[in-house]
Amino acid sequence: MSLAIETLSVFPGLFEPYMSTSIMGRARDRGLVSFSAHDLRDWTHDRHRTVDDAPFGGGQGMLMKPGPVFEALDDLTCGGERPAHVVFFSPCGHPYDEAAAARLSRESRIILVCGRYEGMDERVYSLADEVVSLGDYVLTGGELAALVVADSVVRLIPGALGDDMSAADESFSDGLLEYAQYTRPSVYDGMRVPDVLLSGDHAAVAAWRRASAIERTALWRPDLLGQADLSAEERERVRALVEDSNGPRGE
Amino acid sequence: MSLAIETLSVFPGLFEPYMSTSIMGRARDRGLVSFSAHDLRDWTHDRHRTVDDAPFGGGQGMLMKPGPVFEALDDLTCGGERPAHVVFFSPCGHPYDEAAAARLSRESRIILVCGRYEGMDERVYSLADEVVSLGDYVLTGGELAALVVADSVVRLIPGALGDDMSAADESFSDGLLEYAQYTRPSVYDGMRVPDVLLSGDHAAVAAWRRASAIERTALWRPDLLGQADLSAEERERVRALVEDSNGPRGE
Repeated sequence: MSLAIETLSVFPGLFEPYMSTSIMGRARDRGLVSFSAHDLRDWTHDRHRTVDDAPFGGGQGMLMKPGPVFEALDDLTCGGERPAHVVFFSPCGHPYDEAAAARLSRESRIILVCGRYEGMDERVYSLADEVVSLGDYVLTGGELAALVVADSVVRLIPGALGDDMSAADESFSDGLLEYAQYTRPSVYDGMRVPDVLLSGDHAAVAAWRRASAIERTALWRPDLLGQADLSAEERERVRALVEDSNGPRGE
Repeated sequence: MSLAIETLSVFPGLFEPYMSTSIMGRARDRGLVSFSAHDLRDWTHDRHRTVDDAPFGGGQGMLMKPGPVFEALDDLTCGGERPAHVVFFSPCGHPYDEAAAARLSRESRIILVCGRYEGMDERVYSLADEVVSLGDYVLTGGELAALVVADSVVRLIPGALGDDMSAADESFSDGLLEYAQYTRPSVYDGMRVPDVLLSGDHAAVAAWRRASAIERTALWRPDLLGQADLSAEERERVRALVEDSNGPRGE
């Protein structure tokens, strides 16, 4: 059964350009995933199709009213459709990660509810199966968060990356960052690809890649190492690396 | 001087729908920010406009070649334009947060370089002023990461949220998650807004909101509390809350 991904937002047109391009579009063409964007304003009852109102207690900006969200999710989750897993987005949510993406990729139907304005009336979160935070930053709305979740989930569906591809050999798949990768030319502007990668010695390449992944994780994201599956010898190597670390890349 | 945001990718058409909508579109209309999307294939020299090649050492998928990226950034960053701050995206990068968004919002020109396929030749990262990770998950490309960064940065530019609005009163602005918010009706389907928010007592509302922000942070994201500016009394309250915590929201 293919995964059904649905969004509920006041900008239903924002999703299709991304969801019809590249890997997302091909996964839909192959029938691995379906996508539909619901317009929250379809569940309003006034001439202006109002979805927002001023906050109780004063303050800047407008909040999303509870009514349209409750009515929309009531309509969308009841009836003959398969059961839906309802996801809300908020900086107050649970930090999203690859394990959450893998879990969502095994659902049959997910509804991604996107806020806008200053936020949503707190009562709507009672409708959430989970509240997700993309990271410790604030966005103008949940639409990009929904696209990030859709993208990270769809690429984990078997077949979505192409028949000969899998998502098994990447950052976080084994608790480590991905090893350094190189393509032609072997020398670019004086910068050489490591000799071992040109050697044709598959065991040596595999050992180099494992060491690269461990080294990069130790240097840039030592916080991830607690979850990684390392041998006693690798743990010893990591200890030395972490002592020399300068913290995350780019800092 | 307005902020110039530019992207470099193989899907230059993916950005405009988002960047011309809502707050992003209005910020551009007001001259607070400019946006342009460069096509990486413009820096290829073969008939097929090839940007990818197979990885040295074997393995699945294709990598982005160094040549087009080096040539594009050489063209874009040299010459008469203002100096550019070059951002790459990778799960191996520095975790993006609101402080990074604030820092980028004070640049005059940022170039967001978006990878695709299995990743980029490691040598291109020598061109980065910083390498950013949105979070511990994998995406099919850097385009959504670039939009997330653009969105989170633009909304911090004074005037972008509207003349009467600011981003000062939100999650992370004071090291805490945002307080619970409510709008009309005061009772929805049996769920009541806290009485204090209906009282008109501004000092009581402010105290309730401060307590709500502290409580939510203590319950859902105690890892943030180390950076928060709390009084001795608030620290004592937090200690009691953390002991009762069930971990992040939605877990």
